[in-house]
Amino acid sequence: MTGRPNHVALVRFPGGELRSLDEAELGQIDKLREKPGCLIWLDITDPADEDIGLLRKEFDVHPLAVEDLQLRKQRPKVDTYPGQHVIVTYEVRRAGDEEATSADGDGPALGEIHLFVGAGYLVSVHWGPSAVVSDVRERFSKRKDALGTTVGGLLYAVLDEVVDGYFPVLDDLSERIDELEDRIVGGNQGGSTLREVLSIKRELLQLRRTLAPQRDVANTLLRREVELIEDAILPYFQDLYDHLVRVLDQLDLYRDLVAATLDANLSVTSNNLNAIMKRLTALTVVLMVPTLIAGIYGMNFHSMPELSWPLGYPVALAVMGLAIAGLGLFFWRKDWF
Amino acid sequence: MTGRPNHVALVRFPGGELRSLDEAELGQIDKLREKPGCLIWLDITDPADEDIGLLRKEFDVHPLAVEDLQLRKQRPKVDTYPGQHVIVTYEVRRAGDEEATSADGDGPALGEIHLFVGAGYLVSVHWGPSAVVSDVRERFSKRKDALGTTVGGLLYAVLDEVVDGYFPVLDDLSERIDELEDRIVGGNQGGSTLREVLSIKRELLQLRRTLAPQRDVANTLLRREVELIEDAILPYFQDLYDHLVRVLDQLDLYRDLVAATLDANLSVTSNNLNAIMKRLTALTVVLMVPTLIAGIYGMNFHSMPELSWPLGYPVALAVMGLAIAGLGLFFWRKDWF
Amino acid sequence: MTGRPNHVALVRFPGGELRSLDEAELGQIDKLREKPGCLIWLDITDPADEDIGLLRKEFDVHPLAVEDLQLRKQRPKVDTYPGQHVIVTYEVRRAGDEEATSADGDGPALGEIHLFVGAGYLVSVHWGPSAVVSDVRERFSKRKDALGTTVGGLLYAVLDEVVDGYFPVLDDLSERIDELEDRIVGGNQGGSTLREVLSIKRELLQLRRTLAPQRDVANTLLRREVELIEDAILPYFQDLYDHLVRVLDQLDLYRDLVAATLDANLSVTSNNLNAIMKRLTALTVVLMVPTLIAGIYGMNFHSMPELSWPLGYPVALAVMGLAIAGLGLFFWRKDWF
Amino acid sequence: MTGRPNHVALVRFPGGELRSLDEAELGQIDKLREKPGCLIWLDITDPADEDIGLLRKEFDVHPLAVEDLQLRKQRPKVDTYPGQHVIVTYEVRRAGDEEATSADGDGPALGEIHLFVGAGYLVSVHWGPSAVVSDVRERFSKRKDALGTTVGGLLYAVLDEVVDGYFPVLDDLSERIDELEDRIVGGNQGGSTLREVLSIKRELLQLRRTLAPQRDVANTLLRREVELIEDAILPYFQDLYDHLVRVLDQLDLYRDLVAATLDANLSVTSNNLNAIMKRLTALTVVLMVPTLIAGIYGMNFHSMPELSWPLGYPVALAVMGLAIAGLGLFFWRKDWF
Amino acid sequence: MTGRPNHVALVRFPGGELRSLDEAELGQIDKLREKPGCLIWLDITDPADEDIGLLRKEFDVHPLAVEDLQLRKQRPKVDTYPGQHVIVTYEVRRAGDEEATSADGDGPALGEIHLFVGAGYLVSVHWGPSAVVSDVRERFSKRKDALGTTVGGLLYAVLDEVVDGYFPVLDDLSERIDELEDRIVGGNQGGSTLREVLSIKRELLQLRRTLAPQRDVANTLLRREVELIEDAILPYFQDLYDHLVRVLDQLDLYRDLVAATLDANLSVTSNNLNAIMKRLTALTVVLMVPTLIAGIYGMNFHSMPELSWPLGYPVALAVMGLAIAGLGLFFWRKDWF
Repeated sequence: MTGRPNHVALVRFPGGELRSLDEAELGQIDKLREKPGCLIWLDITDPADEDIGLLRKEFDVHPLAVEDLQLRKQRPKVDTYPGQHVIVTYEVRRAGDEEATSADGDGPALGEIHLFVGAGYLVSVHWGPSAVVSDVRERFSKRKDALGTTVGGLLYAVLDEVVDGYFPVLDDLSERIDELEDRIVGGNQGGSTLREVLSIKRELLQLRRTLAPQRDVANTLLRREVELIEDAILPYFQDLYDHLVRVLDQLDLYRDLVAATLDANLSVTSNNLNAIMKRLTALTVVLMVPTLIAGIYGMNFHSMPELSWPLGYPVALAVMGLAIAGLGLFFWRKDWF
Repeated sequence: MTGRPNHVALVRFPGGELRSLDEAELGQIDKLREKPGCLIWLDITDPADEDIGLLRKEFDVHPLAVEDLQLRKQRPKVDTYPGQHVIVTYEVRRAGDEEATSADGDGPALGEIHLFVGAGYLVSVHWGPSAVVSDVRERFSKRKDALGTTVGGLLYAVLDEVVDGYFPVLDDLSERIDELEDRIVGGNQGGSTLREVLSIKRELLQLRRTLAPQRDVANTLLRREVELIEDAILPYFQDLYDHLVRVLDQLDLYRDLVAATLDANLSVTSNNLNAIMKRLTALTVVLMVPTLIAGIYGMNFHSMPELSWPLGYPVALAVMGLAIAGLGLFFWRKDWF
Repeated sequence: MTGRPNHVALVRFPGGELRSLDEAELGQIDKLREKPGCLIWLDITDPADEDIGLLRKEFDVHPLAVEDLQLRKQRPKVDTYPGQHVIVTYEVRRAGDEEATSADGDGPALGEIHLFVGAGYLVSVHWGPSAVVSDVRERFSKRKDALGTTVGGLLYAVLDEVVDGYFPVLDDLSERIDELEDRIVGGNQGGSTLREVLSIKRELLQLRRTLAPQRDVANTLLRREVELIEDAILPYFQDLYDHLVRVLDQLDLYRDLVAATLDANLSVTSNNLNAIMKRLTALTVVLMVPTLIAGIYGMNFHSMPELSWPLGYPVALAVMGLAIAGLGLFFWRKDWF
Repeated sequence: MTGRPNHVALVRFPGGELRSLDEAELGQIDKLREKPGCLIWLDITDPADEDIGLLRKEFDVHPLAVEDLQLRKQRPKVDTYPGQHVIVTYEVRRAGDEEATSADGDGPALGEIHLFVGAGYLVSVHWGPSAVVSDVRERFSKRKDALGTTVGGLLYAVLDEVVDGYFPVLDDLSERIDELEDRIVGGNQGGSTLREVLSIKRELLQLRRTLAPQRDVANTLLRREVELIEDAILPYFQDLYDHLVRVLDQLDLYRDLVAATLDANLSVTSNNLNAIMKRLTALTVVLMVPTLIAGIYGMNFHSMPELSWPLGYPVALAVMGLAIAGLGLFFWRKDWF
Repeated sequence: MTGRPNHVALVRFPGGELRSLDEAELGQIDKLREKPGCLIWLDITDPADEDIGLLRKEFDVHPLAVEDLQLRKQRPKVDTYPGQHVIVTYEVRRAGDEEATSADGDGPALGEIHLFVGAGYLVSVHWGPSAVVSDVRERFSKRKDALGTTVGGLLYAVLDEVVDGYFPVLDDLSERIDELEDRIVGGNQGGSTLREVLSIKRELLQLRRTLAPQRDVANTLLRREVELIEDAILPYFQDLYDHLVRVLDQLDLYRDLVAATLDANLSVTSNNLNAIMKRLTALTVVLMVPTLIAGIYGMNFHSMPELSWPLGYPVALAVMGLAIAGLGLFFWRKDWF
């Protein structure tokens, strides 16, 4: 660890020795870069102006790349400058991380990472702690990973860790979509269900927008437009690309499933409406017919023979009851209740 | 058959002799591979760690391919490593097979197959018994199939069997869609119909997602990016590709038919709603008019001349009857009943 | 005509002489094929096993092409084998033809045709009588058509006749869509209209699925991937391709028109529903207000001064009448009736 | 003007002299064509058989192009024959023109134009008077236009005039869509609105179908696949292509606006339905409650103390009035009226 | 500043000196253009005929480019003429600017800018004051910007300023969409909401139509089809392209969000309708049952024993009350109120 808390500079020397540079040595990185076989990894958290000064001085970072660093919210991309490539990627922030960037406040919190790669070095810049960088540094320090001796291998390790972070997000979405479908088929079409639909759609759109350009980044690297990637590492970038394609496939599947679910919802609602209206119609008729009969015998005509029949009243009640029962049965048979 | 139950290693020698290797010989496969004209087929069911060790030692399988084997649920793909291609494909599991992999629990059960092909050998790895592999092995043993003497021919035989397995699934879907259409046009728009729509949609999406990359696999093989496929076998891979295109065409047709059916459903529901509302309106009017008349003659005004008319009551009843009949006829003519 | 009823073998000799081969000569076709300048056309209806044997023996048909012949229901395609191309196409069967193939039982009946072309010969195979083949043979025999002297010209003549058969189908669809639109705008939204929509949609989908690959076939031929097509005939294949593009354009237009019509239907239905509900509301109010008035004067309070007014009854009736008229007018003005 | 009224043959000689050919000279056009520097423009209205004979004899028109002339209703396209290109395009017919071709009877009337271009000549064929051809001939005669000295320039002049004719149609559509939107937002969702939507949609589809291939024609000319277009004229064809792209962009925008308007219509209708149903519910309750009260005091129980209260009747009326007022206020507050 | 108010002509001489040309010198620009190392920037506001004459004389502007200037409303594009490129772009006009061009009167006001670039000069033409041009001129005059010494750098500066102007528009749209979503989920589905949806959709369509061709412009410049752009400036044009892709991505996201919101709206409306109809049904039943009971005891039969019961009346009232309470509770439990 260096003196400044937001800096970690590691150097792996040709023999395999790993050492972290202290503050004073940072100014000498441009010398180290010239030694063949050295692999330098400088990690910067929350870059301040002096850090950017260091990048410009020691790593000849292009003014446009500096501008991107200062503005943030860049699209995932590979920018190629003379002697240097700048890769922008987004990792999924884990719960509890503080300074997560999510362009529109929706979906999983995403952390922007800028990677500067050139002959013999990789510089990673991020805002807030990055779980991806910590995990890869751990592996790099312990040298479990045979890849950790070249820039290409190190770049792969970081990007692979980034992509692996998306799989739990997909699993979570899959579960939420299943639950959503159960709610809709189960008849719960209230406001909360709708809010959930909108929220899942937003997340899918957000993820797609972040991941599609990351796939293009992987493809650019794979097509060997970045000369730092040796032949032996190419299959690894192929694998990275495959994973991103799989993630995007899955997102498209989810989008289609949500669309199917919404269509189903509309159908369910329409069917329910029909059922309700049938019931209303049936109930109206069943209740209005005896009301009409009662109205008839409530008329005040002087000569209404039925009124003086001894059994007039019970018969009238019976007729009403029969009307209710008959009409009720009729509509029941038509499945209108 | 070899000693270990999950291993079958067959070798066809240049002269045409077919022999299965026993456990001891497995460790010598790398020697056999060097003999020109030999064709080795090693089939592994439910690969354990020792099987993977065998693959690494005898067939120089790349660590990434091993990782894919261990993780499973790979996308159908062709991965090219030095001297070896790895092809991932999915067969339709037949009813009764136990360990079927279906990524999201929907659609027909699919079984993942990893094929490692190189000069003179094919290794197939699957989980649970594979009907495809058994069938091809049967044909291979009896050498009915002239193709069974080269790696390309053997690869074709396996993939062709895989693709043929999808046709019954398509037929089944076609029947279910026809039945669905009948149900909807026949007016059955209940929850079970909807559940069936959702289930068919899911299956179509699932199948498309599995088969589209398999078509890309066939195309890769066809474009001769895999050097193991001789000229004489190319038409067979063209045929394989054609079959996959046909299957995907069919899936797209089914998707469009389901969409058309759903649209029809919405129209049917809306039309029904209109019919119901017309009926409700007509019934309301038909019943309320005589009720109003009865209400009028139920008023208690002292001087209501009609009340004392001898024919007042029957006339009132007749007026009500006429109102019901007239309005009923009116709405009947307007086709509101 | 040859002895066997399902065989017609015609040979045009270099000098222009046209002769049909008899049964015995069929076995010598491979000799004829070697003579330069000869053009052989063998037409087979309902191929039996012996016909397929003939194809294999005399024309070296590839096993895969034989398999396609036996399975039928192939996608329209061009398959290239050494020295031979196999083209699969579908003609529209005219009414009255018996054995028409329609993959899903919908749309116009389609007849599958397999064409085998090579240097100096064309073999056409179909099931049931083919109007296309008969018409072309007629022209070929009379040699009206200057094209009939090369394989490319003959192939064009057959395919052009196939494509021309689709135009009447399009005209029929166009009329049905116009009629459908009239029905919907005219308010007929019953089940038969819907069934017609579904049926037109199915037909459009079916035709598109058959014709899109036929366009690809024409394009393949046009791009000169089939070496049998001379320069002079290329414009004809360009014309064939243009016709297929026009047919497909038309199909897409029809699809969009049907979609627009369905949308219109939904709008019409919704508007109608609103109109019905407004009427129901208006009628309910118009009838309930006088009923309420009648109810009031039907109450049995001892001191209801209006009851003993001499003009009480007519005034009450007048109030009811005014209420009906006033409310009726009110809703009429709001256009709710 | 020549003798036959449907022929105009103009020749611009190398020195700039412009002369119209008479009937006798028409048969010598093939001689004129051989003179370098001559530019011949033959315009034919309503081609008869003898005109087609002239085209075949003097301009070596290919049989397929003749067939297209006779069949008409061709797709806009560029057909390339040896030494000649045939371009099919459609102009917008101005009001009052008689014989306008509109494939499906909808949209603006379109006039088909066939242009035959080759070294030193352009032949234009159309049916009915063509405003485009007249306008360009006017300019050509007066030689205002510096372009009028090469075949490429003349072709550009005709096609540019064709494309310019589409802009008024677009403006008209734009106005109709604006008006449509006003009608829908203003609540007019009757049948005439719907008919207008369908009519606009049909026109947009029709125009798109005609213009998209015309853009392809412009692109073909621009890509220099037609060797008659000199470098100096290329920017003009680029301009032509840009105009067509702009027209198509505009059509797509209109299509999207109409779709948005229809969606809005559906939303408006649904919202209106909800409002109506709320009102119906509120009115039902407001009127049924006093009716129930009146019903209660219309019962004939012997001992109903309220009936003999002196203030019974006015109190009952007041209770009814309060019920109406209170419920009315309640629903008013809920915004259900 | 020159004499004419709508002209500003600045020249940066090789040594870095910056001078504005006066009216007399304008006629000598063609001489200045020949001096190597000079960079001329002529800005014209509201071009009049004499300005266009100047452009034609001093900068050899092509007649077609002049025509575009006079017609205005061009699509964003790069037109290449010999020795000159013409770029059409649109800036967002800030509030208060007067003469803003907005093709269809919707969306943010856009100002058309035509840029003529050639060796050593850039001419910008716009209508009304252009904030973009003013800002860049400010920077150019003060030479803060190291880019301001080449035509490519100056062109980048102008286009970058143009693109930066779109970001506030995007932020504004994002806020309006969020607000819209809140309104809809909050149940406000009135006409103003709908008008807002339509207005946002129009704006998105309008912006997309303007920005998509601007991206193509950036891509054309990036692909080095314009020879004026040196290697050192290429990354800047890459950055410009990236920004435009980001803007378009964002627009697509907004479009999808608005679509999701509209779908949600439809679902909300349907659910509300169902809820209203359930309530109507429940209220109808709850009120009609006691009305029926009252009707029964209002009948005039001579012998209705209940009428003479001392407790007849209170019991009847109690039964009515129980019916209301019981049915109310029943529907409450079913969540129909």
